[in-house]
Amino acid sequence: MAETIIVTGGTGFIGRHAVEDLVARGFKVIVPTSRDITDGVDGATYLTCDLTDAADRDKLIGEANASGLLHIAWRAAVSGLWGAPENIDWLQSSLALGRAFLDAGGQRITLCGSCGEYDWTSGMCIEDQTPLRPNTIYGTAKVSVMHGLSAMCQTAGATLATGRPFFIYGPREHESRLTAYVIQCLMRGEEAACSHGMQLRDYSHVADVGRGMAALAASNLAGEYNIATGEAVRVKDVILEIAKAIGRPELVKLGAREAPAHEPPLIVADMAKTRASGLDWAPRFTLESGVADTIDWFRANA
Amino acid sequence: MAETIIVTGGTGFIGRHAVEDLVARGFKVIVPTSRDITDGVDGATYLTCDLTDAADRDKLIGEANASGLLHIAWRAAVSGLWGAPENIDWLQSSLALGRAFLDAGGQRITLCGSCGEYDWTSGMCIEDQTPLRPNTIYGTAKVSVMHGLSAMCQTAGATLATGRPFFIYGPREHESRLTAYVIQCLMRGEEAACSHGMQLRDYSHVADVGRGMAALAASNLAGEYNIATGEAVRVKDVILEIAKAIGRPELVKLGAREAPAHEPPLIVADMAKTRASGLDWAPRFTLESGVADTIDWFRANA
Repeated sequence: MAETIIVTGGTGFIGRHAVEDLVARGFKVIVPTSRDITDGVDGATYLTCDLTDAADRDKLIGEANASGLLHIAWRAAVSGLWGAPENIDWLQSSLALGRAFLDAGGQRITLCGSCGEYDWTSGMCIEDQTPLRPNTIYGTAKVSVMHGLSAMCQTAGATLATGRPFFIYGPREHESRLTAYVIQCLMRGEEAACSHGMQLRDYSHVADVGRGMAALAASNLAGEYNIATGEAVRVKDVILEIAKAIGRPELVKLGAREAPAHEPPLIVADMAKTRASGLDWAPRFTLESGVADTIDWFRANA
Repeated sequence: MAETIIVTGGTGFIGRHAVEDLVARGFKVIVPTSRDITDGVDGATYLTCDLTDAADRDKLIGEANASGLLHIAWRAAVSGLWGAPENIDWLQSSLALGRAFLDAGGQRITLCGSCGEYDWTSGMCIEDQTPLRPNTIYGTAKVSVMHGLSAMCQTAGATLATGRPFFIYGPREHESRLTAYVIQCLMRGEEAACSHGMQLRDYSHVADVGRGMAALAASNLAGEYNIATGEAVRVKDVILEIAKAIGRPELVKLGAREAPAHEPPLIVADMAKTRASGLDWAPRFTLESGVADTIDWFRANA
């Protein structure tokens, strides 16, 4: 009998790729959703559920009878994510969901963490070494959830794995985010007002991140794993790659806006632990192919 | 008008000393309690409340109308604390209490943390430097609470201070804990089976810890502060001080039991940050006077 796994956020930016991958791996995948689904993944089961509602959570856990939980859902990744009050709702709902899952006999939780959990003054983010010292409410809430679920899993004799995505772009990206913003400006023939772009970041295509979270959920690994590329690229190189692919480099205005105050010069994942872990995953997209794929999606969905 | 502060755990081992100190500092102190109080602090107000019950929490917050919350309550510190499932209840109840307090306009939370939040392989525990990497469920739950309350306080525009006690002894200590165990054995003329006792620990008298938590709550400080002595003493030196004071050194059996597996050779607080903070507090007890005070209490309450 196929193993059953609940994937929260399974209709979202990262989650839909995780659902595809887990279905392909032969899992029975249950996706709680508060939206009407018109483009669900074939083979996945969608259940109506508001994860911030206790009765809905209990109903989901009861109906799913799952051994695994891949928890990706969080507040929609719109502008202001780092400091939004909804982070508090998701903090408490995440802990309550984890507890309900474990109380019903759940065996394994995989949490979608964030590079925002690390002390960003370190630049290089190394699991089990770089301190978890977030400087945003979002990152602080994620650290709280990880430790809370860890305490719960230890108590229940279950395992917890945390996958940490870094910077993500790709199809369905919210329009307020960098890549989607630049692509849409340039497609419309409008100027894209960017920061200096000298920041070094670890950028991943969202499908690679989703597959990475799925691979982690499908594994027996416990602990924390960066799900990224390990390569630092300048933000302006991402922007200029988009401009080159669309053919409108003159519309890019580097330095036209301030870089966010809380963002340091370098944030990159150390990938040694993930690579040595035996995790059945590696990124498939290069920056070039990832940007091309993203532009294709925005053109097809303009 | 006096500032009002809720002190959870205010009838307990640490908390009663905090309540005394805050009353002496002129605060209006509200103490939620699930027990009948026969020896309350004069001037403090005791309200019946089960902090793990949502309706009781809301009632407390509504009745207290407090600007401050000093959160010391946790599961009773009995044997098995480090791994007990009740830690999960207190994790979730602590976050829910904090949220209810802030939603009602609360301005400042002071949390009683633990040295168990630190990575104990470091030996020396330095705030903002030693990684928070607990190896117990208790410590993990406390880290989750601190980050969760931090996210909540940032969102609400309130301040959070965390005081971290280290190893504590003193009057009313639970009989399963080292100092109480040795004192009671020796008072009864029985052998005390101890570990080798070579572990170096930072030991504080509980009244000093309670006063330290109160001073932190009364201050405007934000962030994390060790509430300890900064001096590492061997566990056997604590034991032998008791034996000397009671006059029965021959009953102490060092090496008669294994040291707990998860306990490293050295755990000591760096006190530089606390000392430089301007906190209106310093420990009053030496090991000698603290042990004498503790023995006096156990003799009076035998």
